[in-house]
Amino acid sequence: MKFTAEFIANALKGRVEGNSGIEVSKLSKIEEGTEGSLSFLANPKYTSYIYDTKASIVIVNEDFIATKPLTCTLIRVNDAYTSFSQLLDLYNQVKNNKVGISPQAAIAKSATIGKDVYIGEFVVIGENAVIEDHSKIYPQTYIGDNCKIGKNTILFPGVKVYSDCIIGSNCTFHAGVVIGSDGFGFAPQSDNNYKKVAQIGNVIIEDDVEIGANTTIDRATLGSTIIRKGVKLDNLIQIAHNVEIGENTVMAALSGISGSTKIGKNCMIGGQVGMNGHIKVGDNVKIGAQAGIMSNVPDGKTIIGSPAIEVGAFMKSSVYFKKLPELAQKLYSMEKKLNAD
Amino acid sequence: MKFTAEFIANALKGRVEGNSGIEVSKLSKIEEGTEGSLSFLANPKYTSYIYDTKASIVIVNEDFIATKPLTCTLIRVNDAYTSFSQLLDLYNQVKNNKVGISPQAAIAKSATIGKDVYIGEFVVIGENAVIEDHSKIYPQTYIGDNCKIGKNTILFPGVKVYSDCIIGSNCTFHAGVVIGSDGFGFAPQSDNNYKKVAQIGNVIIEDDVEIGANTTIDRATLGSTIIRKGVKLDNLIQIAHNVEIGENTVMAALSGISGSTKIGKNCMIGGQVGMNGHIKVGDNVKIGAQAGIMSNVPDGKTIIGSPAIEVGAFMKSSVYFKKLPELAQKLYSMEKKLNAD
Amino acid sequence: MKFTAEFIANALKGRVEGNSGIEVSKLSKIEEGTEGSLSFLANPKYTSYIYDTKASIVIVNEDFIATKPLTCTLIRVNDAYTSFSQLLDLYNQVKNNKVGISPQAAIAKSATIGKDVYIGEFVVIGENAVIEDHSKIYPQTYIGDNCKIGKNTILFPGVKVYSDCIIGSNCTFHAGVVIGSDGFGFAPQSDNNYKKVAQIGNVIIEDDVEIGANTTIDRATLGSTIIRKGVKLDNLIQIAHNVEIGENTVMAALSGISGSTKIGKNCMIGGQVGMNGHIKVGDNVKIGAQAGIMSNVPDGKTIIGSPAIEVGAFMKSSVYFKKLPELAQKLYSMEKKLNAD
Repeated sequence: MKFTAEFIANALKGRVEGNSGIEVSKLSKIEEGTEGSLSFLANPKYTSYIYDTKASIVIVNEDFIATKPLTCTLIRVNDAYTSFSQLLDLYNQVKNNKVGISPQAAIAKSATIGKDVYIGEFVVIGENAVIEDHSKIYPQTYIGDNCKIGKNTILFPGVKVYSDCIIGSNCTFHAGVVIGSDGFGFAPQSDNNYKKVAQIGNVIIEDDVEIGANTTIDRATLGSTIIRKGVKLDNLIQIAHNVEIGENTVMAALSGISGSTKIGKNCMIGGQVGMNGHIKVGDNVKIGAQAGIMSNVPDGKTIIGSPAIEVGAFMKSSVYFKKLPELAQKLYSMEKKLNAD
Repeated sequence: MKFTAEFIANALKGRVEGNSGIEVSKLSKIEEGTEGSLSFLANPKYTSYIYDTKASIVIVNEDFIATKPLTCTLIRVNDAYTSFSQLLDLYNQVKNNKVGISPQAAIAKSATIGKDVYIGEFVVIGENAVIEDHSKIYPQTYIGDNCKIGKNTILFPGVKVYSDCIIGSNCTFHAGVVIGSDGFGFAPQSDNNYKKVAQIGNVIIEDDVEIGANTTIDRATLGSTIIRKGVKLDNLIQIAHNVEIGENTVMAALSGISGSTKIGKNCMIGGQVGMNGHIKVGDNVKIGAQAGIMSNVPDGKTIIGSPAIEVGAFMKSSVYFKKLPELAQKLYSMEKKLNAD
Repeated sequence: MKFTAEFIANALKGRVEGNSGIEVSKLSKIEEGTEGSLSFLANPKYTSYIYDTKASIVIVNEDFIATKPLTCTLIRVNDAYTSFSQLLDLYNQVKNNKVGISPQAAIAKSATIGKDVYIGEFVVIGENAVIEDHSKIYPQTYIGDNCKIGKNTILFPGVKVYSDCIIGSNCTFHAGVVIGSDGFGFAPQSDNNYKKVAQIGNVIIEDDVEIGANTTIDRATLGSTIIRKGVKLDNLIQIAHNVEIGENTVMAALSGISGSTKIGKNCMIGGQVGMNGHIKVGDNVKIGAQAGIMSNVPDGKTIIGSPAIEVGAFMKSSVYFKKLPELAQKLYSMEKKLNAD
C-alpha cells in the first residue's frame, strides 16, 4: 500500500508543505527514516534529525519553524504526536484485518460463532463455546468447552483457554497465553505424598484486557480467578488460583502472584515482582521491579525490595549496604579503642 | 447435570435435613453460594455464612448445631471437608472424561496406542511412540519419536514432548509445557563465538508428577534429566539439563534450576527461586521465595535470601537493613565524639 | 542404528584395542555406561570408572595407560573429548534429519519454500513468507505473513513468529518460542484507563542465534527489536520492544530486558536478571544471577545484586548483611557506654 502526502494530509486534516504527490509505504522513527517512509517530529529534542532524515514525509506541529533547508515534505497538523499515533492505529487495523473461518479449524457443532469472525487453521473450539462478533482467533488456538469470547477480542496463535472460562470484549491475548490451567493445590498426606485438590472454578477476564505472550492464569479452586476491566499484563507472568486484579492495574514481565491474593485498581507493578498468597494490595500502589511482597500493602504506597519497604528507605539502605564492610571496620576499631580506654 | 440432595447424601453416606428433593448443578464456596449450588461448612470461622448463604444445599459435620433459622437444606456427614473434596474430584472426573481418537490427529503408523485413550485434534505422535491405556492427549500436543507416555496421564493442549523422553503414569502436564528441549550448552571458541554442545540425552519423568503451564524441562547432554515420583512443579519453571529432583518435592512458579543440580526429596521450594548449577540440595529442605542458592544445602535447612541464609537470620538482618541509614548516622556521630575526646 | 568399533575408529582416525567387531547403538557417560553404549575418558578425574564401566567401547587419549584389566574395547585417538563431541554432533544430525513437506501443513500460495526443507503437520505459513533451503519447521509452528526464515534454521514444535519478522540462517528456536508479539506499550489516559500504542515494528534475528523454550521477544513499536549474530538465549526469557542484544552475548533463563535497552557484545548474563528500560550495557559485561540493573553499565564490568554493584563489593557486603544484628547490638552497647561516660 502506498499513500500520497496529499491523501494523508486530508486524512489528518493537515496541510502539505512540499511535494504533495510524494508517496510513502511505511512508518519510521525520524532518525531511522528511509526513502518511502513517513515520520513525525513532536519532541524538540529530536529537531536536529529533521534536517538529515531520509524520510519522504515528516508530520510536524503547525508552529514548527525550519532553521535550515529541508529535503523532506512536511505535513503540518495541530498535534504531530497524536496524528502519528492515529496513523499507527490505522496501519495496525489494516494489517490485522483477517476474516473468515478456515475449513481446517475444528469447531464443535454446538459452538456459536458470531458475525465477521476470523478463525484460523488448526483452531479447536469446544462444545457450547461462544465466539462473539468481530473476534479474531488466530491459528492453533484452543478454546475449551463452554468458554465465551467477547466481541472484538483477538487471540493470537497458540493461545490455550481451558473449559468454562469467560473472556470479555476488546481483549488481546498474545501467543502462548494459557488461561484456566489448574491452580497449584495439593494436600500433604502422611506419607509425604501430595493429593491433588480438584480445581473446578474458572477464570473471568473482563473487557479491555491485554495479556502478554506465554503468560499463565490459573483457574480458581472454587469460584473464579478474576482480571478486571482494563488490566494490562506483560509477557511470562504467573497469576495463581483465586487471585483478583483490580481495574486498570498494569504488571510487567516475569512477575508472579500467589493464590488468593487480591490486588487493587490503578496499580503499577514492575517486572519480576513476587507476591505471597492470601494478601491484599490496595489501590494506586506502585511496586518496583524484583520486589518481594510478603504482607498487605495499603492504598497508595510505593515500595521495593525483598522483603519490600518504602522506596526512599530502600534506596538509602542500599547505599549503606554497599558501605557495610567499611562501616563494620569503623565499628570494630572504635570498639577496640573504647575497650582500650 | 443436576443431582438431588437425596442422591448426594446417599453417595456420601450422609443424611438429609430439609428438602431431600432439592436439586443442585454446581459447587460453590459458602460465601458465594447461589440457588442451585452445593456448598460445605467445615471451618467454624465460616459458620456465620450458613445463615445467609443462597446455596441450596450445604454439607455440614454431624455435630453442627444451628443457632438461627436456615433456608438451605443440610447434608450431615462425618467429615464435611473430606466429603466435599470427594465431590470436587468426582466433578472433575466427569468433566474431563473425553475419549476417542480424532481423525484430525497425525499419528505415526509405528506408534502404539493403548485402550480407552483420548487423542484430540491436531495432535502429532511420532514414530515408535507409545501411549498407554486411559491417557488423555489434548489437542495440538506434540509427542516426538520414541517417547513413552504412561497410563492415566493427561497432557493438556499444546504440550510439546521432544523425542526419546519417558513420562510415567498418573502424570498431569498443563498447556504449553515443554519437555526435552536442548540443554543450554555452548563451548566458548577463541573468536568469542560459541559452538553448540549436542544435547543427546533425554528427560525421564516418573509417576504422579504434575507440571504447570508453560514450564520447561531440558533434556540432558548425555544421560537423563530426572523428575522423581510425586514431584509437583508450578507454572513457568525452568529445569536445566541433567538436573534431578527428588520424590515429592514441590516447587512454586518462576523458579529456575541450573544444569546438573540435584535436589533431594520432600523439599518445598518457593516462587522465583534460582539455583546455581552443579550443586546438591538435601532432603526436606525449605527455600523461601526469591532465594538465590549458590552452594550445597544440607538436609532439613530452611533458608531464604540471595545469597540464601537461614530464615531466622535473614528476617533479623532485614529489619536492620531498613535501619541502616539510622545505624550509620549513629556510628558517624559516635566516631566524631570519640575522636573529639 | 548400530556401529562397530572398527567403523567408528576409522571415522575418528583412531585405532581399536580389543574387539574391533563389537557393536554400539548409543552414547553414554562413562559412569553410566551399559552394554551396547560407547563412552569416552578425557578428564583424569574419571579414570577409575574405566575399570568398572559396562560400556562396550571407550574412546581414550593416545597416551592412556591402563593400570588394571579392562573389559571394554578401547578406541585410541589424539583427543578423546573432541572425538566424542564429533560423535555427539553426528548423532544429533542423524536424529534430526527430517525432510519433506506435510500435506497437513497450511502454506499460503504466495509463500516461497526452499530446497530440502522439512515442514511438519499443522504448520501455518503466511502470505509472502520465505523459508530458505534446508530449514526445518517442526509441527504446529506458526510463521506469519511476510516473515523470512534463513537457511538451515530449525524451529521446534509450536514456535510462533508474528508477521514481518526476519530470522537469519543456522538459528535454532525451541518449542513455544514467541517472536514478534506486541511490545508492552500503553499511554495513560486521564480516567486511569490506558490506550494501546500500536506496535508496528518487527523483530530481526541474525545468524547463529539459539533461543530457548517459551522465550518471548516482542516486536518494536517502530523500527526493530534486534538480536545480533551468535546470541544464545536460554528458556523463559523476556525481551521487550526495541531492545538490541549484541553479538555473542549469552543470557540464562528467566531474565527480563525492558524496552529500548541496548546490550553490548560478548556479555554473559545470569538467570533471573532484570534490566530497566532505556539503559545501555557495554561489551564484555558479566552479570550475576538475580541482579537488578537500574542504570548504564560500562564495558567489562562484573556486577551482581539488586540494585547491582561490583561483584567483590556485593560478596563482602553480603557477609556483613548476615552479621547486621550482631553489629547493631555492638553499636547500641557502645553508644550506651559512651553516653554513660
